[in-house]
Amino acid sequence: MKTVKIGLLGLGTVGGGTVDIINNTMPEIQRRLGQNIEIVIIAMRDLNRYRSADTTGIQLTDNTAEVVNHPDVEIVVELMGGTGLAKELIETAIKNGKHVVTANKALIAEQGNGLFALAKKHNVIVNYEAAVTGGIPVIKSLREGLAANKIEWLAGIINGTGNYILTEMKEPGADFAQVLKVAQELGYAEADPTFDVEGIDAAHKLTILASIAFGIELQFDKVYTEGISKVTADDIRFAEQLGYEIKHLGMASRLENGYSLRVHPALVPNTVLMAQVSGVMNAVMAYGDHVGATMYYGAGAGAGPTASSVVADIIDVIRWKDQPIADQVPALGFALDQLQSAPVVSIDEIESSYYLRFFVKDNAGVLVKITTILADCKINIEHLYQEPSTQKPSDATLVMITNTVKESELNLALADLAQLKEVDGEIMRIRIQTLG
Amino acid sequence: MKTVKIGLLGLGTVGGGTVDIINNTMPEIQRRLGQNIEIVIIAMRDLNRYRSADTTGIQLTDNTAEVVNHPDVEIVVELMGGTGLAKELIETAIKNGKHVVTANKALIAEQGNGLFALAKKHNVIVNYEAAVTGGIPVIKSLREGLAANKIEWLAGIINGTGNYILTEMKEPGADFAQVLKVAQELGYAEADPTFDVEGIDAAHKLTILASIAFGIELQFDKVYTEGISKVTADDIRFAEQLGYEIKHLGMASRLENGYSLRVHPALVPNTVLMAQVSGVMNAVMAYGDHVGATMYYGAGAGAGPTASSVVADIIDVIRWKDQPIADQVPALGFALDQLQSAPVVSIDEIESSYYLRFFVKDNAGVLVKITTILADCKINIEHLYQEPSTQKPSDATLVMITNTVKESELNLALADLAQLKEVDGEIMRIRIQTLG
Repeated sequence: MKTVKIGLLGLGTVGGGTVDIINNTMPEIQRRLGQNIEIVIIAMRDLNRYRSADTTGIQLTDNTAEVVNHPDVEIVVELMGGTGLAKELIETAIKNGKHVVTANKALIAEQGNGLFALAKKHNVIVNYEAAVTGGIPVIKSLREGLAANKIEWLAGIINGTGNYILTEMKEPGADFAQVLKVAQELGYAEADPTFDVEGIDAAHKLTILASIAFGIELQFDKVYTEGISKVTADDIRFAEQLGYEIKHLGMASRLENGYSLRVHPALVPNTVLMAQVSGVMNAVMAYGDHVGATMYYGAGAGAGPTASSVVADIIDVIRWKDQPIADQVPALGFALDQLQSAPVVSIDEIESSYYLRFFVKDNAGVLVKITTILADCKINIEHLYQEPSTQKPSDATLVMITNTVKESELNLALADLAQLKEVDGEIMRIRIQTLG
Repeated sequence: MKTVKIGLLGLGTVGGGTVDIINNTMPEIQRRLGQNIEIVIIAMRDLNRYRSADTTGIQLTDNTAEVVNHPDVEIVVELMGGTGLAKELIETAIKNGKHVVTANKALIAEQGNGLFALAKKHNVIVNYEAAVTGGIPVIKSLREGLAANKIEWLAGIINGTGNYILTEMKEPGADFAQVLKVAQELGYAEADPTFDVEGIDAAHKLTILASIAFGIELQFDKVYTEGISKVTADDIRFAEQLGYEIKHLGMASRLENGYSLRVHPALVPNTVLMAQVSGVMNAVMAYGDHVGATMYYGAGAGAGPTASSVVADIIDVIRWKDQPIADQVPALGFALDQLQSAPVVSIDEIESSYYLRFFVKDNAGVLVKITTILADCKINIEHLYQEPSTQKPSDATLVMITNTVKESELNLALADLAQLKEVDGEIMRIRIQTLG
């Protein structure tokens, strides 16, 4: 049996998971692949540090260059993260004729266009299934499984931390700050949670998903990104009463005049499967013109799930590495020279119906004023819910669902509404996505 | 741009859908594949029959042999169904060195072992994504996406007709016969619905899924199969009250002493995503040792979804057809000589908790007798629900959920219970699957 030798950059959570699979599941993998996979070298930051897996027989180094220049290594597996050193190392590996497997979503989203061009020039493969939604084979499903479709839109819960927080905020008495603290204690959220809760991580994944769905260049800087830190437990409760769940969605859609790429909280009807995806789990819906709606669900992070995708990518590289690059599935699903540099439509142009929540003082008169402003802006109220303030009987919380309007027009109305002296604090505005 | 010529056997629903995709989505496919696909010949039963798609420029014939012997055809797409003529034609195509794409689940489940061996001998590919759950790329996800895992179990709603019937039976006043009639009128069920409602169609798909999950030979004749025709609207209502949905599941699991392959109605906790899959939609959960639970959801039938998988398979064949067969993904995910001829564990040996429903006469005394028999058989009752009969106040319906017991032991108890003169009619027994 042939043995393919690989080198790892990084021995953190995912690196350890990858070593575990190679150590424990190789007999099953050999039954599939007919070849053996051997990790010959691993670069780790600190050789004295705790090792997350049994590395017996593997050369360990703190010199990353040794991995990408190792003469026996055919596949470099980058699991260190970051867009600086990781990029340099991957570029060196590619120039050395080595194939690359990476779980680095930031790097692919921000630097993928250049990396894929370089890889093509050097006839090597760069696989990155683990970069999006951990163990769910959604890159493969989009690039290959749905290849006969023009994808119309996709939407996903693509950040487990955020979904865990929103799920836990449904518990009585829970609020964002409190749940975040628990998530940090459980290791579901980083000490600095910005990346997850403000949607940057989701925007990286959305950038990649949109490219392979539509055949457009990676355009991370064009993604509209809004976090979940302003969503309150009350909003979640009001949404539930109206038949919705609040989810932090990454969404990409094909419009007449371009593409919409966005990450923001959304009200999803609770009759839709996506609304039932809870806790740290991830899911992506993709709607193809022929296949209709499909959904892919699983663990979006963690050692085992992410390493599952890393090793599946290694297996794919081994199957393809001796074949002509022109016959292979292109990195972004579409031939590089066929990628369109598509206009991304501003969030201002997006049409949606909206959930609006106001805290109002002087309850008696304010409803007339608010509804007048909305009517003047030609915005209809489809649902209205009012609840007395727990503080002062004359105060109230108003919740509305609008008809479908253009975001820029809603913004004009919201600017007028914010001027009302009876409106107390910020007006909450959450887009509604029916995913139908 | 190179053109690959293909021939179709059959121009029914899926054939028409395939022609539609080739007619309408070719520019998008060319951006992916860098090659053109052309249908040059289609065999149809009756040339004067209604054509489900625009076949301008395509040679039509009622002589199926012309397709499999056509000198220009590189890929034969079999969409005629059946296990007789379809098998012969596919064998001829393989012997002629042509690759095959098929949506024929019965043929793969019943004759796949031989066909795949023949294909390997002749260095051609046989792809069959469309044979299982229509448009959902579940074959690809299992064979490739989860290739780093030992799959522990899988479970799916893999027959849309059955799921539509069970979903509609939740409507007030609906019963099986009535809903089946509507399903037939809507075209969701055949005039003879046996294949769908008695689980044979699902058993075909389950056979295939189990093989690629575990690396075992196709063993259709070993699948335990039980239909949904005995499930009543009352059972669905009782299940709902207890927090379950009744679903017709195909299930395969890895046990200590072999594998369990089965299709039967099951109570699924309504907190599980699978319970929310309704109407004609399909879904498959697969649990891998590293990835944990994953799920794949979409339309399990219909022209567009099924043809979506057919054309994705064609694209895969085109990418792989000039590469060495040894490097390719094996037909069943595992190398043919690595497939295990695994023992299938009898349903009698399966452990499960059970939903039991009795119609009883003479309500007062019978509960003591029933619970005594169960206690004697060491079966515990975890939930008990009783409802008066609408006919006679002294009669009742009893619903129980048991603890986990071996099926053979439950059967002994049921045999004793059936002897009780107070038990009226058949005792309903449905297995509970927590899918957790």
